[in-house]
Amino acid sequence: MTSERYELIYWPVLQGRGEFVRLALEAARADYVDVARLPEDQGGGIPAVLQVLKGDHEGAPPFAPPILRHRGALIAQTAAILHYLAPRIGLAPNDEVSRIHALQYQLTITDWVAEAHDTHHPVSTGLYYEDQKKEAAKRAKAFREQRLPKFLGYFERALASSGGPYLFGSEPTYPDLSVFQVLEGLSYAFPRAFAETSKQSPGLLKLRKLVRALPNVAAYLASERRIPFNEDGIFRRYPELDSSE
Amino acid sequence: MTSERYELIYWPVLQGRGEFVRLALEAARADYVDVARLPEDQGGGIPAVLQVLKGDHEGAPPFAPPILRHRGALIAQTAAILHYLAPRIGLAPNDEVSRIHALQYQLTITDWVAEAHDTHHPVSTGLYYEDQKKEAAKRAKAFREQRLPKFLGYFERALASSGGPYLFGSEPTYPDLSVFQVLEGLSYAFPRAFAETSKQSPGLLKLRKLVRALPNVAAYLASERRIPFNEDGIFRRYPELDSSE
Repeated sequence: MTSERYELIYWPVLQGRGEFVRLALEAARADYVDVARLPEDQGGGIPAVLQVLKGDHEGAPPFAPPILRHRGALIAQTAAILHYLAPRIGLAPNDEVSRIHALQYQLTITDWVAEAHDTHHPVSTGLYYEDQKKEAAKRAKAFREQRLPKFLGYFERALASSGGPYLFGSEPTYPDLSVFQVLEGLSYAFPRAFAETSKQSPGLLKLRKLVRALPNVAAYLASERRIPFNEDGIFRRYPELDSSE
Repeated sequence: MTSERYELIYWPVLQGRGEFVRLALEAARADYVDVARLPEDQGGGIPAVLQVLKGDHEGAPPFAPPILRHRGALIAQTAAILHYLAPRIGLAPNDEVSRIHALQYQLTITDWVAEAHDTHHPVSTGLYYEDQKKEAAKRAKAFREQRLPKFLGYFERALASSGGPYLFGSEPTYPDLSVFQVLEGLSYAFPRAFAETSKQSPGLLKLRKLVRALPNVAAYLASERRIPFNEDGIFRRYPELDSSE
């Protein structure tokens, strides 16, 4: 069965990487269903995610969620989903090179997100945080002191190159939403380090405010569709990782 | 100055992430120049890379090499470069959904490469391997035992879904070249673990042979343009990381 409605397939209990797709769908008020947040007896829940991952469909199999189903096709990998989706819902820049640059930005965000995740899982995603705390303390220190300023500085420079307030000028596109999400996540996970380091990034702090105030985004953030940050996601508040004390 | 010739900007002394772009350019016999491998007095060398990273050009700044310069535009991030480049040089599938799936595969390869890299740098890229050997031993064990079989199994399943011998059927596209490069790298870095684990992946071993025998690829691999694997790159042969003994 093919459908014009977008179906997002992602774990129902955390923001995770699915949130980058969810934010774009919400900001555009796109017609979508968050499949796994439906009750199980309506085809939702975690079984719905596992069913898609089992992969008895045609075409390229997904490695992991998030997955977008549209017109019968399954698309995985956050940045690939957004590259496909954004032009259809009015969240991509217009010309080919700018669209490649939007993808380029999104991939740098992907790297940043992976590094933020690895602060609490530096050894293995197959182990609990509690089993890699010592290594996590070291990795988090390097993240706070070297990587966080580097990524913030890079995107501040990107805003300067466009003239702002968004990455492609006066209108928000999907990487702006993703940068917003990373800033939200980092200020949740590393409140002390983020507050201190982001002082050097006035353009990013302004972008964060502007995105948060977009009417569709504001309505989404105030709704119960927005899952709160928690310690199952990418951005986790472990106070010992926010400080060398 | 704009030019139809492709210019690849990448560190001149290692394969690194630049190799995924280089392989595509070579496989297509595209007209390109590997800028930093020119002598410094011809505008090459490491200063050429640093010059581009300084970023006094227009448009989105690059975060890191590899960078492609084409028609005056700079494009960074390996997967974004390949998504832009491949349709122009005959290495992309034809329809839109397949092109998104090629990007999806490339992004899963990107994740795989990052995890292979982090086996020797689990704490920080700002420290030497020698300063994180204990953590590296743990991360490498998790990579060999959990992640390597998972990624190999995934791409074996992807080949089964297309019918093979390539990811999109009978003709090679850019993610096939990248899978080849990862298999080469892993068999260099983890000869014992790769030989053992890849026995379960006959389709991938066949793809590796087929890509290596493509005339343009074979000519490239035999040339001095192919930099040998070494311990400055992503795939490093540290025997202690290939075994729990």
